[in-house]
Amino acid sequence: MLYGHQTWVFPAKPTVLSAATVVGPFEARGPLAEEFDIIHGDLWLGQDSYEKAEKKMMEEACEIAVQKAGLQKQDIQFFLGGDLLNQIISSSFAARTLAVPYLGLFGACSTSMEGLALASLLIDSHSAQYVLCGTASHNTAVEKQFRYPTEYGSQKPPTAQWTVTGAGTALLGPDGQGPKVTAATIGRVVDMGLSDPFNMGAAMAPAAVDTITAHFRDLRIAPDEYDLIATGDLGRVGHEIAKDLLTKHDLSIPEKIFTDCGLLIYSQDQPVMAGGSGCGCSAVVTYGHIFNQMKKGKFKKVLIIATGALLSPLSYQQKESIPCIAHAVSLEYDS
Amino acid sequence: MLYGHQTWVFPAKPTVLSAATVVGPFEARGPLAEEFDIIHGDLWLGQDSYEKAEKKMMEEACEIAVQKAGLQKQDIQFFLGGDLLNQIISSSFAARTLAVPYLGLFGACSTSMEGLALASLLIDSHSAQYVLCGTASHNTAVEKQFRYPTEYGSQKPPTAQWTVTGAGTALLGPDGQGPKVTAATIGRVVDMGLSDPFNMGAAMAPAAVDTITAHFRDLRIAPDEYDLIATGDLGRVGHEIAKDLLTKHDLSIPEKIFTDCGLLIYSQDQPVMAGGSGCGCSAVVTYGHIFNQMKKGKFKKVLIIATGALLSPLSYQQKESIPCIAHAVSLEYDS
Repeated sequence: MLYGHQTWVFPAKPTVLSAATVVGPFEARGPLAEEFDIIHGDLWLGQDSYEKAEKKMMEEACEIAVQKAGLQKQDIQFFLGGDLLNQIISSSFAARTLAVPYLGLFGACSTSMEGLALASLLIDSHSAQYVLCGTASHNTAVEKQFRYPTEYGSQKPPTAQWTVTGAGTALLGPDGQGPKVTAATIGRVVDMGLSDPFNMGAAMAPAAVDTITAHFRDLRIAPDEYDLIATGDLGRVGHEIAKDLLTKHDLSIPEKIFTDCGLLIYSQDQPVMAGGSGCGCSAVVTYGHIFNQMKKGKFKKVLIIATGALLSPLSYQQKESIPCIAHAVSLEYDS
Repeated sequence: MLYGHQTWVFPAKPTVLSAATVVGPFEARGPLAEEFDIIHGDLWLGQDSYEKAEKKMMEEACEIAVQKAGLQKQDIQFFLGGDLLNQIISSSFAARTLAVPYLGLFGACSTSMEGLALASLLIDSHSAQYVLCGTASHNTAVEKQFRYPTEYGSQKPPTAQWTVTGAGTALLGPDGQGPKVTAATIGRVVDMGLSDPFNMGAAMAPAAVDTITAHFRDLRIAPDEYDLIATGDLGRVGHEIAKDLLTKHDLSIPEKIFTDCGLLIYSQDQPVMAGGSGCGCSAVVTYGHIFNQMKKGKFKKVLIIATGALLSPLSYQQKESIPCIAHAVSLEYDS
């Protein structure tokens, strides 16, 4: 059901029956290590390319979510997935393994919430009984895709971010135990003319703010409706800009409930520059850490705003600025 | 509403209020030239790169569809788009120009029907009043993306296909005059182990057949329900394979109602090898030619099955086979 201009409210409150997270060795050194289902000590996951390692993470995250829900692959009607590699191969190849009907998505690092929003819509509209959605990113595969192979050892400025090696999936059904999706706000493309791929946080912050303000306007609620409001991967630079822009929009979010997945996943002493990023960042932090906190009763209602930079290496080479987007999903958990 | 395993039936029958097609000079030499809204004589569209030309086609197709429906951009709640370029930049940059909430999709050449299916679901479930969906491909941009820049003059075997330069969009609303979307079948990834990117028709044919058989099984109807059944871009080779496979599945489609958009768009004397392909192929043929024929009363009910090869240049280099998919949408028109 459409509320306002761009927000869907789900009266049936689709349930996240299970979620799964798979990460790499670098994420294992961060503060959230214990919140993930699988931690790989080997960045290659035993594969002969980083791209195949990313695919394998996605496949594992799909399998675990299905197992956790006590279901079989054939019970799943639709898989909604996307990633950062060219032509979203990790998702498409994982969909081949799953062998269930598949809708490929691309929203860069906003794909996690694009998928969760659409999966919720499918359940809410009785268009499916069980839907799996997910996304993945692999640090070295994504660096190769968007910048340079890491073996080149190119240097980065402090505004740059560190792509998370991780895959996160969520399996939704019409009812049961788990976080319930209550609404989703689909973002517009916002481009303030920034073109520095080493400062994605600054480029994405206005998109995050556009979607956040749309969410509260469409639903006619205030930020204190939520116990936690987390953006996807703005990092330190983008988070500060988002706070400033929200204040300018007369929509201040209290400091203690406003955070960013890219700030949560790594420790202060890890060399991640401005913080974590990548498709997998918001997915593993939300489906691991935040869902665990909800189940422990720490948060009852949360709003996740996954942010994406819709550039390609080629658009950057052709001197285009970086169009950005953010999709927001609100969840609640009654223990 | 889910029917069977993977088919949505839309009781509200969302209406395609308007559709728009933009093509290049090579398509102007084909038999459908008069069915398109804009024909560009210049493959560059006055831009300084082929990628920017593709984006411009998409922008034009969006603008024309909105104009034809007598609406303004701000009346559109959501734009659903995707294309073949890395990180679907043509769609994302067109979404920036539109400035409406955007869901990025990727289904390779199946994107046209992936978008139309989801757009119909949004209307049918009252999640939107007006939704625009579209896709685009540009011959030389796509060749550069997936194979080699055309300036290299590389040779191709007769099983290869010619990427259509074209953009097609459809604008959907809850009611009004125009073709109505009655159902959609979302495909599974099918991979029979083929790995030759110069024979996509053969790779995609089994996916088309999988979705076609699912469609008729889920809805418990027979092919003679339709006046036309058209696949997206199987071309000559894939079309023959699809016919054979359907016969093996005891689902023969009468010759006179079974065709392929890749066979319709070019003349016999154009050097397109096995036929047309690309995201734009099924989009411009369906939204141009087929819709025009429906409005003239020639076809009342049609089924379009857009087929996509979910490979990337990198997956091919890493010796992966080609996962394929097909999404089907059925439309009817009461004059």
